[in-house]
Amino acid sequence: MKNLKVTIAYNGFAYNGYQSQPNGNTVQDRLQKSMTELLNQPITINGCSRTDAGVHAREFVFNALYDDRLSSITPDSFVRAMNGSLPYDIAVLSCEYAPLDFHARFCAKGKEYLYLVDISKVRNVFSTDLALHYPYDIDVPKLREAALLMVGQHDFAAFCKAEAKEHLKSTVRTVTDIRIEKKHNNVEFYVSGDGFLHNMVRIIVGTMIYINEDKRSAEDVKEALETGNREKAGKTLPPHGLYLNKVFY
Amino acid sequence: MKNLKVTIAYNGFAYNGYQSQPNGNTVQDRLQKSMTELLNQPITINGCSRTDAGVHAREFVFNALYDDRLSSITPDSFVRAMNGSLPYDIAVLSCEYAPLDFHARFCAKGKEYLYLVDISKVRNVFSTDLALHYPYDIDVPKLREAALLMVGQHDFAAFCKAEAKEHLKSTVRTVTDIRIEKKHNNVEFYVSGDGFLHNMVRIIVGTMIYINEDKRSAEDVKEALETGNREKAGKTLPPHGLYLNKVFY
Repeated sequence: MKNLKVTIAYNGFAYNGYQSQPNGNTVQDRLQKSMTELLNQPITINGCSRTDAGVHAREFVFNALYDDRLSSITPDSFVRAMNGSLPYDIAVLSCEYAPLDFHARFCAKGKEYLYLVDISKVRNVFSTDLALHYPYDIDVPKLREAALLMVGQHDFAAFCKAEAKEHLKSTVRTVTDIRIEKKHNNVEFYVSGDGFLHNMVRIIVGTMIYINEDKRSAEDVKEALETGNREKAGKTLPPHGLYLNKVFY
Repeated sequence: MKNLKVTIAYNGFAYNGYQSQPNGNTVQDRLQKSMTELLNQPITINGCSRTDAGVHAREFVFNALYDDRLSSITPDSFVRAMNGSLPYDIAVLSCEYAPLDFHARFCAKGKEYLYLVDISKVRNVFSTDLALHYPYDIDVPKLREAALLMVGQHDFAAFCKAEAKEHLKSTVRTVTDIRIEKKHNNVEFYVSGDGFLHNMVRIIVGTMIYINEDKRSAEDVKEALETGNREKAGKTLPPHGLYLNKVFY
């Protein structure tokens, strides 16, 4: 047996998310199709995370165990062959052998997400599915201050999709950093942490957008974290501005 | 009567080019549909140019005459209403009244095109339809030298789609400038001139790509310009890297 650790990027626009589904056009299904052909054996991969329909990844890691008696492929030729086989919206960035006990999800120490906002007055027709169009000023210093309230270990129950909470033992997570950077007409929100609830980044950034519009205050954020009241946080932003940006091991 | 001069941008990926077609899903058809509704009268617009299927525009100008007894819309409210009505891949950037004899095509003094090349080793999944993926080094100083051979007034018959030539009185055009700029993993080829033959920019940049690969020489370019021999120029690059970048009046 060998264990491949593979880093990919994908444009999530055309997919029903990362995670395999019975009838689903998913990133995982597409990767497994190419790998099963390439490695001459049925392959199931372990992704570092799930991403929703329309969410992108600049850097997503998965691992795959395979029987190396059935395939003598090297990591370098794997990268080339996969990029030849995959559609243009999925790319293999790198590949290496990992210890047999490496698991892309269980071994991940943390992740960084990016939420991209296009503040052009008129929408940018070249980033339609790649950023949220929000044609208003963003008060970056004000939002940096609000972001500090959410950094640290907190109960993020108010920042989680309702249905997703029922299956969880705990909604306590640690957000290690929130960075907000303005570049020309883009505002980039980087959120990193040890683990994330369903929709957590989209609600964190949605809360900051509401703070930008004075629809929520610092007090609301504190109350959301203390009481778990979803109403005190902001709206869930759409998926197409969200990117899994990095995975930490 | 009033005459509107309108500047738009579009992502050409989903369209069969700019120019209206009987059964065609074209940018012109889509604009005329929204304008006919908005101005309460059948509208035919005059585009500054044609663009092929898949070609984009960062700045495209058209004009439209309309009966202002049937519509009292102002240029500012026209921009807002059109951006509300158009799909996300077409955007109105600005609009103003023009003299009644202004015609977007006949009054244009020149145009600038951009051909965008992504030289990342692994394709960028976020610019699939927005740049040519060419995962090799580009010798920019060498291509700048080759570009100088094509600047000026020349017979560009060798740089024209064969079928398009038959209908033309002359294939002499003036290329006023070719700029090549490298930004991170993108190489941008800007070609400006007084008029362009069908596929001319895609063949000019295709010739430079062949020069980069030593498949064509400076001598070949000179011969192409002197003899009109299509074989001495390079291949026609695909449409998705091409943008109409500016129109000069």
